[in-house]
Amino acid sequence: MTIMKSVETSGLYTDLYQIAMGQAYFLDGVAEKPAVFDYFFRTIPYSGGYVVFAGLEPLIDVLENLKFYPEDLEYLQTLGFHRDYIDFLSSFTFSADVLAMREGEIVFPLEPIIRVEGRLFEAQLVETVILNLVNYQSLIATKAARMRQAAGNRVLSDFGLRRAPAQGGMLASRAAIIGGFDSTSNVKAAQIYGLEPAGTMAHSFIESHGDELTAYLKFVKANPKRAVLLVDTYDTLLSGVPHAVEAAKRLEEEGIELKGIRLDSGDLAYLSKKAREMLDEAGLSHVSIVASNLLDEYVIKSLIDQGAPVDMFGVGTRLVTGFPDAALDGVYKLSVYDREPRMKISDNLIKTTLPGKKQVARFTDRKGMFMADVIFLEGEEQLERMFHPYEREKTLSLSQYSDEPLLKPIMAKGRRIGERREVKEIAQYVKDRLSLLPQEHKRFENPHIYKVGLSEKLMILRGALMERYKMGFSGGKR
Amino acid sequence: MTIMKSVETSGLYTDLYQIAMGQAYFLDGVAEKPAVFDYFFRTIPYSGGYVVFAGLEPLIDVLENLKFYPEDLEYLQTLGFHRDYIDFLSSFTFSADVLAMREGEIVFPLEPIIRVEGRLFEAQLVETVILNLVNYQSLIATKAARMRQAAGNRVLSDFGLRRAPAQGGMLASRAAIIGGFDSTSNVKAAQIYGLEPAGTMAHSFIESHGDELTAYLKFVKANPKRAVLLVDTYDTLLSGVPHAVEAAKRLEEEGIELKGIRLDSGDLAYLSKKAREMLDEAGLSHVSIVASNLLDEYVIKSLIDQGAPVDMFGVGTRLVTGFPDAALDGVYKLSVYDREPRMKISDNLIKTTLPGKKQVARFTDRKGMFMADVIFLEGEEQLERMFHPYEREKTLSLSQYSDEPLLKPIMAKGRRIGERREVKEIAQYVKDRLSLLPQEHKRFENPHIYKVGLSEKLMILRGALMERYKMGFSGGKR
Repeated sequence: MTIMKSVETSGLYTDLYQIAMGQAYFLDGVAEKPAVFDYFFRTIPYSGGYVVFAGLEPLIDVLENLKFYPEDLEYLQTLGFHRDYIDFLSSFTFSADVLAMREGEIVFPLEPIIRVEGRLFEAQLVETVILNLVNYQSLIATKAARMRQAAGNRVLSDFGLRRAPAQGGMLASRAAIIGGFDSTSNVKAAQIYGLEPAGTMAHSFIESHGDELTAYLKFVKANPKRAVLLVDTYDTLLSGVPHAVEAAKRLEEEGIELKGIRLDSGDLAYLSKKAREMLDEAGLSHVSIVASNLLDEYVIKSLIDQGAPVDMFGVGTRLVTGFPDAALDGVYKLSVYDREPRMKISDNLIKTTLPGKKQVARFTDRKGMFMADVIFLEGEEQLERMFHPYEREKTLSLSQYSDEPLLKPIMAKGRRIGERREVKEIAQYVKDRLSLLPQEHKRFENPHIYKVGLSEKLMILRGALMERYKMGFSGGKR
Repeated sequence: MTIMKSVETSGLYTDLYQIAMGQAYFLDGVAEKPAVFDYFFRTIPYSGGYVVFAGLEPLIDVLENLKFYPEDLEYLQTLGFHRDYIDFLSSFTFSADVLAMREGEIVFPLEPIIRVEGRLFEAQLVETVILNLVNYQSLIATKAARMRQAAGNRVLSDFGLRRAPAQGGMLASRAAIIGGFDSTSNVKAAQIYGLEPAGTMAHSFIESHGDELTAYLKFVKANPKRAVLLVDTYDTLLSGVPHAVEAAKRLEEEGIELKGIRLDSGDLAYLSKKAREMLDEAGLSHVSIVASNLLDEYVIKSLIDQGAPVDMFGVGTRLVTGFPDAALDGVYKLSVYDREPRMKISDNLIKTTLPGKKQVARFTDRKGMFMADVIFLEGEEQLERMFHPYEREKTLSLSQYSDEPLLKPIMAKGRRIGERREVKEIAQYVKDRLSLLPQEHKRFENPHIYKVGLSEKLMILRGALMERYKMGFSGGKR
């Protein structure tokens, strides 16, 4: 189920230049020539060691249904696009072949994560929506995975909708679950994507009653299966927790068990320990403690290191905004046009792109642990050695490892191939795959850089194309 | 025109706890008692001196159409909510009165920006969508306004959709224009909100042609009215600009005038100066220079300070993500319940809220310049002195200023009052209002803090309620 159908699946969910370039291709008669584009990123956010690839399933939903609606065609006419081009767009459907890594794959810089092979026009048009959906979801899923690392087996819940970027909050909640969160406060996202909804209560509920104990009793009786009591409206240890204890005792008499209390301000380490003691002394060791308030992976880790008896963390702002990094720098670049390899040249080798139709192999050791990824040209067979992408003298022998190709066909001629994957399945895949990533790539401080290399043939192709372009300059006009 | 209609206008576009609290209110028979909530924020992002309030019009669209769709009611049933409550929700429409500052108002911490007066249940339910829509749009509009300040009269265009938070990118583009941007690359947002679409070209267009000059000629001929040529695919000064000059010359012969060139990498100050010289020497002084690549208000200011002859800035990531702050900390708090003032208590005065039904007056000097804002209780008449919100001994006499109330009715019984305001009108209002904010509040470094104070009556009411709550603790159970 896609949200925002007529907006998201509109050919206008793109940058104007895609449509302007499309017009130039169309008028030049090359709009339907074959082209290949790659989606990849250059920098791992959060100074981390890995990225969780997320956003593929919603992207396929968009691509399968992409069209120019009548009002879109009218709008393009008001912008002065050619009548013939608009006619061409009116019957457009996306018909490319798409290969991608599995959603939830652990991915690294430079490697193609999505490969689109289709008509030049359509492969170019979808650049913006691919970047828009995948960059953000991968950013959030990666942040969520880091918090999961920090939280161990404790419960993580997404409370971020109120600080989320408008409607982006829907996919933020989806990405949070993919990265390892257990539940979300976002009811609409839970409904759309089949997530576990969760929540506590607000200060206003208590203020509207004035009397904290009465508010607690009424809230739990109305919501016996899920009630968690917010204890910091007046004073956490002098009022909130004692009232919660009293409420729990009274409710026990009616056969209702209080689920938990929530700390939302103050020193969470100190307060959680004191609250735990108070609950335990009252025989309420089954009542769990939820903590929230500007949490991120570092605060969660610190709380756990301090022995804070927090059972569940509610995380908002720093999850759904990908704080402090705000964006994954994913890009989408032409690699083949009209069957010829293409690349972007730059004085800076790091800003060049990799030409040709490529595949990625992940090499693993005997235990299945990830050792290195190699980007190679499709059709290459024996990969015995890989080369550092920028320092040719650095090589790695691969002969002792086994390999696995990561890019798999997911759309053929614009139609989905194979089963849609549900969020739970994707989240499980993230968990499984992260367990195969050696620990040193997962630590927060200066993680070991995972090796991504090029095959010799790819390196040679890149070098040859760069030479050819340079000759082009020195020879004047090409 | 609202986007994402059935998602955005669903009662499930909220946090689970709103629905759980609603159930408790409903079962307790108080769901329809009168309540007042305020939306306000505490911290100005970007260490700045002001916030641009944005997001009101899309919010009204949502509130007017809010309902629980049949699939929403079914979903709530699967979550175990009471049948009677679900019946109550099935006929729900939003019927509150809403007052708000005008969209585009320049706003400051603590002051109520939106005031919702309605049934307890509905006023609580809409908390999440208000925060979700207004926090993000105000964050982006404020960032855009800062860039407008830096850019002076030069053209600013939003290129951010590819790095925007998924569907949040639509309202990001809207907010960018409100804050002072001229145009956006986001075609769908331009269509929906009546914005000016703009764009240039991508590297892939040039790579697909191989020959840069041919690519330029074809692109401009296909898009003569808007073509801007990207000049950094191979080498900006050795290849891109010379080819652009040659293209412009050839096109002149056909009566087509090249609009501009775009620099997207390298040292933008150096390259823009060199490119300007090359263009001018070729008699192409009408060809404008567009610059992009990780711009923000500081980079724009620096480029202008260096005399960079950039005519237009294309801004992406740091605009649409509100980098580096990621979120406005807006909150929504109960201030009146059942006609009695309410507030959130805290040991920390800064975390308490302001009780009662409030209005905000902006005091201006004889020239109309903004001097101070006063939060007061509705019905208060003479405001001769205001008090610092936390330091009672700090006061300011207001007698020499004139005042203007800022909260105006915008919805009555859930229906919009008055005309819908278009984005252009809102953007003009921002411009007008910012011109009335003294310069020292607008500077980037340590801006002077704009004075927001309380009326004496409001301060006394807050003090009395705090006393009463404290008595409650010391007296044991309340």
